[in-house]
Amino acid sequence: MITGKNYIGNHLSAEGKETFKTFNPQLNIETEHTFFEASEDEIRLAVNLAWEAFQKFKEVSGAKKANFLREIAHQIENLGDELVKTYCQESGLPEGRAKGERNRTCFQLRTFSDLVEEGSWVNATIDTAIPDRKPQPKSDLRKMSIPLGPVAVFGASNFPLAYSTAGGDTASALAAGCPVVVKSHPMHAGTGELVTSAIITAAKKTAMPNGVFSNLNSSGIEVGQQLVKHTKIKAVGFTGSIRGGRALFDLASQRREPIPVFAEMGSINPVVLLPKALKKKGTVWAKTYASSITLGTGQFCTNPGLLLALDGDGLDGFIQTLSEEILKIAPSSMLHPNIHTKYHEHKRMMFDQGGLSVTANYEAAVAENYAQQTVVSVSGSDFLKNSKLHQEVFGPFSMVVKSKDVDELANIITQLEGQLTGTIISEESEIESYDNVVNALQGRVGRLIFNGVPTGVEVCPAMQHGGPYPASTDSRFGAVGIHAIQRWVRPVSFQDWPNTLLPDELKDENPLNISRLVNGAQTKECL
Amino acid sequence: MITGKNYIGNHLSAEGKETFKTFNPQLNIETEHTFFEASEDEIRLAVNLAWEAFQKFKEVSGAKKANFLREIAHQIENLGDELVKTYCQESGLPEGRAKGERNRTCFQLRTFSDLVEEGSWVNATIDTAIPDRKPQPKSDLRKMSIPLGPVAVFGASNFPLAYSTAGGDTASALAAGCPVVVKSHPMHAGTGELVTSAIITAAKKTAMPNGVFSNLNSSGIEVGQQLVKHTKIKAVGFTGSIRGGRALFDLASQRREPIPVFAEMGSINPVVLLPKALKKKGTVWAKTYASSITLGTGQFCTNPGLLLALDGDGLDGFIQTLSEEILKIAPSSMLHPNIHTKYHEHKRMMFDQGGLSVTANYEAAVAENYAQQTVVSVSGSDFLKNSKLHQEVFGPFSMVVKSKDVDELANIITQLEGQLTGTIISEESEIESYDNVVNALQGRVGRLIFNGVPTGVEVCPAMQHGGPYPASTDSRFGAVGIHAIQRWVRPVSFQDWPNTLLPDELKDENPLNISRLVNGAQTKECL
Repeated sequence: MITGKNYIGNHLSAEGKETFKTFNPQLNIETEHTFFEASEDEIRLAVNLAWEAFQKFKEVSGAKKANFLREIAHQIENLGDELVKTYCQESGLPEGRAKGERNRTCFQLRTFSDLVEEGSWVNATIDTAIPDRKPQPKSDLRKMSIPLGPVAVFGASNFPLAYSTAGGDTASALAAGCPVVVKSHPMHAGTGELVTSAIITAAKKTAMPNGVFSNLNSSGIEVGQQLVKHTKIKAVGFTGSIRGGRALFDLASQRREPIPVFAEMGSINPVVLLPKALKKKGTVWAKTYASSITLGTGQFCTNPGLLLALDGDGLDGFIQTLSEEILKIAPSSMLHPNIHTKYHEHKRMMFDQGGLSVTANYEAAVAENYAQQTVVSVSGSDFLKNSKLHQEVFGPFSMVVKSKDVDELANIITQLEGQLTGTIISEESEIESYDNVVNALQGRVGRLIFNGVPTGVEVCPAMQHGGPYPASTDSRFGAVGIHAIQRWVRPVSFQDWPNTLLPDELKDENPLNISRLVNGAQTKECL
Repeated sequence: MITGKNYIGNHLSAEGKETFKTFNPQLNIETEHTFFEASEDEIRLAVNLAWEAFQKFKEVSGAKKANFLREIAHQIENLGDELVKTYCQESGLPEGRAKGERNRTCFQLRTFSDLVEEGSWVNATIDTAIPDRKPQPKSDLRKMSIPLGPVAVFGASNFPLAYSTAGGDTASALAAGCPVVVKSHPMHAGTGELVTSAIITAAKKTAMPNGVFSNLNSSGIEVGQQLVKHTKIKAVGFTGSIRGGRALFDLASQRREPIPVFAEMGSINPVVLLPKALKKKGTVWAKTYASSITLGTGQFCTNPGLLLALDGDGLDGFIQTLSEEILKIAPSSMLHPNIHTKYHEHKRMMFDQGGLSVTANYEAAVAENYAQQTVVSVSGSDFLKNSKLHQEVFGPFSMVVKSKDVDELANIITQLEGQLTGTIISEESEIESYDNVVNALQGRVGRLIFNGVPTGVEVCPAMQHGGPYPASTDSRFGAVGIHAIQRWVRPVSFQDWPNTLLPDELKDENPLNISRLVNGAQTKECL
C-alpha cells in the first residue's frame, strides 16, 4: 500500500509540510497519491540511523547478507500487480517493460546474493611472515576489503526499478555491507515506496539492523544536497543528468572529508558505420537502428544519438532508409511532461544550428507527452566546429554526421566527450583498415560493440557500464555487474594480528573457503 | 651529471628565467647546483609529448614494459656513489638510509616489472555468448583494464627515491601504460635529475616513445597547478602535506573533466597501549617507541605521534621511561630548514594548549636544522575538547593521552581524523576485552598493527598504505605494493568483438597465458 510517507529505517514518517504528486504521462493527469517531502530532521534521523546500523551491519556475515538480498527479491516479486500497475502509471512505460525490469532487478539482487555468499569478492591477500629475513624480519600482513559506511543512492527516472530504490547501486552497496539511504525519484515515488516496503519487510524477516535502509521523498534538490553533505554519508551513487550528477560531485568534493560520487550521466553513444557494411547491409542496419533509437521512447542512457560515417552514396541511402523506417514506428509516451518538454526544447535548439538537415521528423498529431522521433544529418566540418551539436538530446533523436574522409572521422571521435559506448558496424575484415578510428573510439568509451546496437546492457561480470567523463564521474568503475560492489569498499591491512582475532576471510584455516592471494598465488588452501 | 635543467622527454631544457638551489641541512649551506624552474611552455611541451607518447606506450606489451622498468632499476644502480652523495647532501639523511631507500626503489620497479610481465593484473573477465538464450540472445562480453593517460607525480620530501622521481607512483603508472610527468621536489632536485637521467637512458635503451617520462623543476606551486589543470593529464599521484594534497585535489575536482588525485597526506598514527602490556612490558615498549618516534628524525608518514592509554600507574611509569629513553637518543638533522622551522612552530603551538605537560624535551644545544625530540602528555578530556591537539607535528614528537576509562578511549579514537595506521599493544588475550576500541580503530585507519610499531612499510601485496581522509584522498587505494597499479587504469568492455582484433589478454587462445575470470571461474584455460 502506498502511504506517501518516508521510511526512516523501519518507521513510516511524514513530518514535513510540503507535498507533491506523481504524474501519469499516458493519461496526462496526476496520480492519486500524495507524497510528503522529507524534512531536515527526517534526513538527519535517517542518516544517523544508517550510521548506527552500519556498526552492526558491517559485521554481518556474507551468508546472512545473501539471505537479506534474496528476501528483498522475493518480497519485490510478492508485490505482484500493484507494483506493475504503479510502475506503468508513473512512467508511461508498458507492462512488458515493467515486468522485464522487475526480473532484471531481482536478478541483480540474487547475483549479489550469490557473490557475497561465495565470499571471494573481498580480495583477501595474505603475505606470511619471514622472521629470519635480513636485514629486517618481515611481518605477517593480511588485507581485505571492508565497507565504507552509509551510502546515498539517487534513483534514475528511466529505470524506476533496476536503477532506483532496489537497483544496482542499492544491491551492490548492501552486498558490500553499507546501509543505504535512497533519495527517491519524484517521478516514481509510489513505485519507490512499494519497493521500500519490500526491502523493509525483508530486513525485518532476516533480522537486519533498523536503519540498514531508508527512503526519503523529495521533488526538489535540497534533500539530496543535505544528504550528500552529511558527514556520516560516505559515498554516493547517482544515475541521471550531467547537471545533476556534477552538482552532487561538486558538493561531495567540497566537503571537509571528500567522498566518492559514482554518477552515471549523459552519453550520445557514437556508432561508426563503415562503407562496405553500409553498401552491403545498409537497409538491415537502418531498420535495426530505427528500432534502437526509439526503444523505450529513446530514454536509455545507451541510446544511439550519433551515427558517424564517410560521406557518399551508401550513406545517403542509409539515411533515407533510416528516416523512412523510423517514421513507421508508432510514437510512445515519455516518462514525464518535464522530460517531454526538454526533448522538444533540445530538438529545437538543434534545428537552429547551422548546416543541419532534418531528414525525419514525425509530424502527425500525437497524444500529450508522446515523443515525435527525429533524425538529422550534418557534415563533419560543421559538427567539428560546433560543440552544441555534441550534446545529448534525451529521447528518440539521432544525428548522422557525414565525414569527408577517414582522418576527419577519427578527429571527430577524438573531439567527443566521454561516452558509455562506442559501436562499429563493419563487414568482415573491413575494420582492419580503420585502426585509427577504432583506437580513437576506445579512448572515449567504456564499452565497444561490434555489429550490434548499444541499447541492451547485459548484467554480467564482463560488462562495463561507465566511461570517461561525463559518461560517468569515475571511469574506473561501473554500476552494472558484480564489480559494482568494489565502489563501496576500501582495503584494510592487519599486521601480525592474532589469528583468532582476524576476520574469517583472513584466518589461517580459511573457514569460508574463499579464494585468496597467498604469497603471490591465488588459492583456496589453508595456511 | 647534474645540469639543473628540466627533462622534456629525452631533451634537456632550461627556457625559464627563475632559478633555485637545493640545501644541505647538515652543513646548513646551499648545494653547488642551480636549477631552472620549468616555464609554462616547457610544462605544455612535456604534457603534449606525454600525450603523444601515450598513443604508442598504451600499446606496448607487458614484456616490453617489464624490460623498461628493469632497465630503470639497473640504471639507477649504475648511478653509483654520485646518487648516494647527492641524496645525503640534499636530505641530511645518512648514507645507510640512502642505500636502503635505493634498494627499495629498485625492488619496487622490479616488482612491477614482474607484475606486468606475468600480465594477469589487467583483471581480464570474459562472459561468452549464449545465442539461444530466451527472450534475447546473450552477447559475448570481454573486459580488461586499460591505462588512463598521462599521470602527474609529485614526489615526497621525506622519500627522495622511493616515493619521488622513480618511486611507487611512477613505477606503478609506467607499469600500467601511463606516461609520467614528475613535478620534481625542490628540496632534492639534484637527486631527482640524476634519477631522471637513469629513466631516460633506460627509455632510450628499451626503445620507449619520447615523452614517456619528463621531469620539471619548480620551487613554488605554480608548475604543479598548471600540470594538474592541463586537460591531457588524466590522474595525479602526490605524497606530502594535507594542505598541498588538498589544494591539488580541489584543482583536479574543479576541472571541466575531473580527474582522480591519489594524495597520501598527514597521519598521527595512533597507538593504543593496553594496561596489562604496560604493566608487564612497559619498559620494553617505551624503548621501542623512543626509537620509532625518532627514526628518520621523526619524518616518516607512519611516525607514531599519538599514544593512547588508560590513566594509571602503568601509564605513568611508561611515560617516564619513554621520556628518559628518548632523551638518550642523539638528535639528527631534519630534511630542510623550512621543515625544521615548522617543527618548532608546531611544537610551540602545542605547548600553548591548555592541560599539556611536557615530559621530555631535548634541551642541550644542537647543530642548525637538528630536531630536538619531544614527548608530551594530556588528559583524555582535554584532548577531546581541543582539536588542535589532534594535528600532526611532523618530526620526532609524540603525545600521550591519558583516558579515564575505556569508553573515553574508544570515543577519542572515534573522534580522530582518518589515519594511515593504528596499533594495539597488548598482552595475549587482553585485547579481547577491548572490542569497542579495536572496532573504533579499524574504522579510522588503513592498517592495523598488533604489538609492533607503525614505522616500516613493507612493500608487498597485502600492505595497505593509505587510509580514510585526510590520511589519503581516496581510502580505496594505496601507493605501496602491486595493487597501486589499479589507480591508473579503467575497465573497457568489448562486445561481440572479432577474436583477431581483441587485445591478446582477451583472445580465445589466451596467448599470454594469464589468469582470467571466464564465465564466473578464474582460469588460465583457453576458450
